[in-house]
Amino acid sequence: MTDTPSTPTKSNPTKSNPGRFFEDFRPGEEIVHATPRTVTEGDAALYTALYGSRFPFESAATAALDHGFEDAPLDDLLVFHIAFGKTVPDVSLNAVANLGYAGGRFGVPVYAGDTLSTVSRVVGLKENSNRKTGVVYVHSAATNQRGEPVLDYIRWVMVHKRDPESPAPEPLLPHLPEAVDAADLRLPEGVSFAGFDTALTGSPHLWEDYQPGERIDHVDGMTVEEAEHMLATRLYQNTARVHFNQLAQQDSRFGRRLIYGGHVISLARALSFNGLGNAVRLAAINAGSHTNPLFAGDTVFAWSEVVERLEVPGRRDVGALRLKTVATRNQPADAFPEKDENGKWASEVILSFDYTVLMPRRA
Amino acid sequence: MTDTPSTPTKSNPTKSNPGRFFEDFRPGEEIVHATPRTVTEGDAALYTALYGSRFPFESAATAALDHGFEDAPLDDLLVFHIAFGKTVPDVSLNAVANLGYAGGRFGVPVYAGDTLSTVSRVVGLKENSNRKTGVVYVHSAATNQRGEPVLDYIRWVMVHKRDPESPAPEPLLPHLPEAVDAADLRLPEGVSFAGFDTALTGSPHLWEDYQPGERIDHVDGMTVEEAEHMLATRLYQNTARVHFNQLAQQDSRFGRRLIYGGHVISLARALSFNGLGNAVRLAAINAGSHTNPLFAGDTVFAWSEVVERLEVPGRRDVGALRLKTVATRNQPADAFPEKDENGKWASEVILSFDYTVLMPRRA
Amino acid sequence: MTDTPSTPTKSNPTKSNPGRFFEDFRPGEEIVHATPRTVTEGDAALYTALYGSRFPFESAATAALDHGFEDAPLDDLLVFHIAFGKTVPDVSLNAVANLGYAGGRFGVPVYAGDTLSTVSRVVGLKENSNRKTGVVYVHSAATNQRGEPVLDYIRWVMVHKRDPESPAPEPLLPHLPEAVDAADLRLPEGVSFAGFDTALTGSPHLWEDYQPGERIDHVDGMTVEEAEHMLATRLYQNTARVHFNQLAQQDSRFGRRLIYGGHVISLARALSFNGLGNAVRLAAINAGSHTNPLFAGDTVFAWSEVVERLEVPGRRDVGALRLKTVATRNQPADAFPEKDENGKWASEVILSFDYTVLMPRRA
Repeated sequence: MTDTPSTPTKSNPTKSNPGRFFEDFRPGEEIVHATPRTVTEGDAALYTALYGSRFPFESAATAALDHGFEDAPLDDLLVFHIAFGKTVPDVSLNAVANLGYAGGRFGVPVYAGDTLSTVSRVVGLKENSNRKTGVVYVHSAATNQRGEPVLDYIRWVMVHKRDPESPAPEPLLPHLPEAVDAADLRLPEGVSFAGFDTALTGSPHLWEDYQPGERIDHVDGMTVEEAEHMLATRLYQNTARVHFNQLAQQDSRFGRRLIYGGHVISLARALSFNGLGNAVRLAAINAGSHTNPLFAGDTVFAWSEVVERLEVPGRRDVGALRLKTVATRNQPADAFPEKDENGKWASEVILSFDYTVLMPRRA
Repeated sequence: MTDTPSTPTKSNPTKSNPGRFFEDFRPGEEIVHATPRTVTEGDAALYTALYGSRFPFESAATAALDHGFEDAPLDDLLVFHIAFGKTVPDVSLNAVANLGYAGGRFGVPVYAGDTLSTVSRVVGLKENSNRKTGVVYVHSAATNQRGEPVLDYIRWVMVHKRDPESPAPEPLLPHLPEAVDAADLRLPEGVSFAGFDTALTGSPHLWEDYQPGERIDHVDGMTVEEAEHMLATRLYQNTARVHFNQLAQQDSRFGRRLIYGGHVISLARALSFNGLGNAVRLAAINAGSHTNPLFAGDTVFAWSEVVERLEVPGRRDVGALRLKTVATRNQPADAFPEKDENGKWASEVILSFDYTVLMPRRA
Repeated sequence: MTDTPSTPTKSNPTKSNPGRFFEDFRPGEEIVHATPRTVTEGDAALYTALYGSRFPFESAATAALDHGFEDAPLDDLLVFHIAFGKTVPDVSLNAVANLGYAGGRFGVPVYAGDTLSTVSRVVGLKENSNRKTGVVYVHSAATNQRGEPVLDYIRWVMVHKRDPESPAPEPLLPHLPEAVDAADLRLPEGVSFAGFDTALTGSPHLWEDYQPGERIDHVDGMTVEEAEHMLATRLYQNTARVHFNQLAQQDSRFGRRLIYGGHVISLARALSFNGLGNAVRLAAINAGSHTNPLFAGDTVFAWSEVVERLEVPGRRDVGALRLKTVATRNQPADAFPEKDENGKWASEVILSFDYTVLMPRRA
């Protein structure tokens, strides 16, 4: 556990949190994040209202119980956002950019009434050549009130230095797996996907029906409002200033509030129901890039590619699909936009998210 | 149960749901809708936040228990919206217009924790003379996790044909009752309205005080925002595209996102508390017309007329009122606007809703 | 208990509530407000989404249980808003202005499942010299379903007279304490703040660390949207028309919907976490002024001053801080704006709120 740094500034002589700068991170340091959070059915209802998600176990407790869950689990991405939000005051309050994710694994299902906490360890540090910023890598682990793992992942962010002249630490770069191995996925204990009824989702397509390389246009578009992304981001107790303070943002490069990148992930996942309705559970986050910003008033679309179809060791009831879901703004995804001829992200692409889902197999 | 039709199109080669066209409906066909939904206190809180509803049994569990409910019931219209939302992907994704409702009856109260499912039967089909569209009538029945009826109703929608040249089915038109008979209302078992305390609502007016032909201006106005109607419509897992996709809508006839008609019904019902505060429960939906569209930024008002005062057979504690509630946009309802001299809906009228409520009687 | 006044007007012949005018209040009169309200985890989740509050006992049931609460309590200000909302239809529907608060004391913690009711007593009446308006003072007491006090406070509002010519009552002015005495604070029974872990909040500062006269800039800014303040105000079942009806407001002095003053209090309290993270519970509301209106699109900031550091009689685990929190619009609070050289509220100041919080002491 560490104390919150509390560097006096003119307007903030003592008590408010200025956030950490690059110099404040030490290799191997453990940061116990504040604000443990009990999640409830209220959070789940808001999540549905924010994204319109329709995946069956989160939607219907009856379906969840039939398959061995203790109750309707909370959406995996709601868990991700809450776990992530806790890290912001300590890790990314002074971040320039959220650069990437790797090695994310979901753990035990989270139910209403569980209390989530997050602890991060600094696993990499590298000053940038301009000496004004550096990249911080943290491994963040979220647990429930019994200490069981619910999610852990590595993320890296670019953070301002307090002083460009301060000495650079020895560069330390963590191992970043390209993807989580099927053997390392944590399947929820006691849950069987056998006998899954596709009437729950209206999608007849199961694990066997998806082919590596197959692309799916998720068709629908969702326009985002300022009130929506701010409600979401506050629900996650994510305090990053760029999402909330229009007065400050009007003088920024974009002149607008930036929408939390996780809001885009949740929108894309909800849109993906139309084509991936039986992707009932997230098992891993392999990688993710927020390639362009999203602003209120923009309309989000998504398409997905099946990257790999993976057997889950020892399981016949369920398989895994490694997916890449790409979200766009203000342009339908039916042309599967991604990078341009120069290998640069197309301007309409706002997210490329590489993750692994569980999907029931045919009997 | 039917499979979801999955007609390949250019942008949608295999897996996403294109929705049904007129040709896809067969007389008598039963459609088991996807996405059963467990309702919670979270949904109830959102419903209050969206409409400001103040009816007493939904507001106060103490009042509900005093009268024989098991708990605070969820708002009847929240149940309606969730039951309705499930039918959209199968019935009205390609709908041109939602034409009407008839014969709607509420059943057992719905409590937090109940799981709602909807099944529809195709009860009418009629091609339009232009051969490009047809009208589909479905009888939709929503049940809880014990199979008990919570709501059933007939609705009819105009749906695109896939191909104007495809043959028309034999026209089939269902019987549409003008109104649900008082003898057919389903009163919640074990619930007594005797001893109802008007201090719960602040309205001293009970069933005996309302006269057929009486008109009530509900006075207050409520301006609607894009974020609000989208949060509501997603909460109901209603995926109709016209509500969410501004990019597509800007090329539509209206250039705007259309607000889900059910949102208007809920706004009108919430406004009606001011004048109908003791209309404690919806028992039937007799008819309803969405006469003009509503857009974000518009302000909604409402007035009601008492159509009939009905005894409920065998009950002295409670009576029924058949009401017509008319909602307007951007014009107060104190002049009771409805149709113009030519029998056309006035341009400010957006809803005419004919329904039956339960109201306590004097001892 | 009183009947709701029901004065016929042109548009409102009989049944809807016109609200009370100054003449309708009698000294000593007790008003039992309508709409008791069961609060739930859904309300708590919405409260988090609306303000991003992070105080530890409301956020984490585990922390609450560790300290002797029965569960995570609902936010004190959520309780205030719900208690307040009930009084609006009877007290302030025809209010010109909400003038002040005094003598507010929080009582027993409120948990999900509790049902709140409010009763007000008219404790002061004074006609204004223009004879068109008068000031009404009410003492409002909110209780839970067991009749235990959860909050009581005095507020005063300026209300229209129905008729300027109607006779003025004898002026009656209640005693308004400058602040609630430490000895009169009601601490939650069975709750100990001993052993409080500052890792819960990330703030190392405890009661001993705050000095009278100390000022804290809460740094962050929060822009407010129309959808947000209306969702909040409806959640509280507060029906004051100026918050919702843009059609009517466009002809008002401001041309805009006014944001409920309580929304500002909650925003300021949530912002104050950054600097006052261990101010774990509100104990009293000493005074409050809504000095300028707030409109959607404005960005809110806040700063606080420690007015007094108070021992709580008989307690070593916890102390009280009397705070003044000032909220601003569209201007950061780092210059601690308050009144100008003429003693007039600076135009950017929208709230000055004098209240007492509980904060754990060092062992």
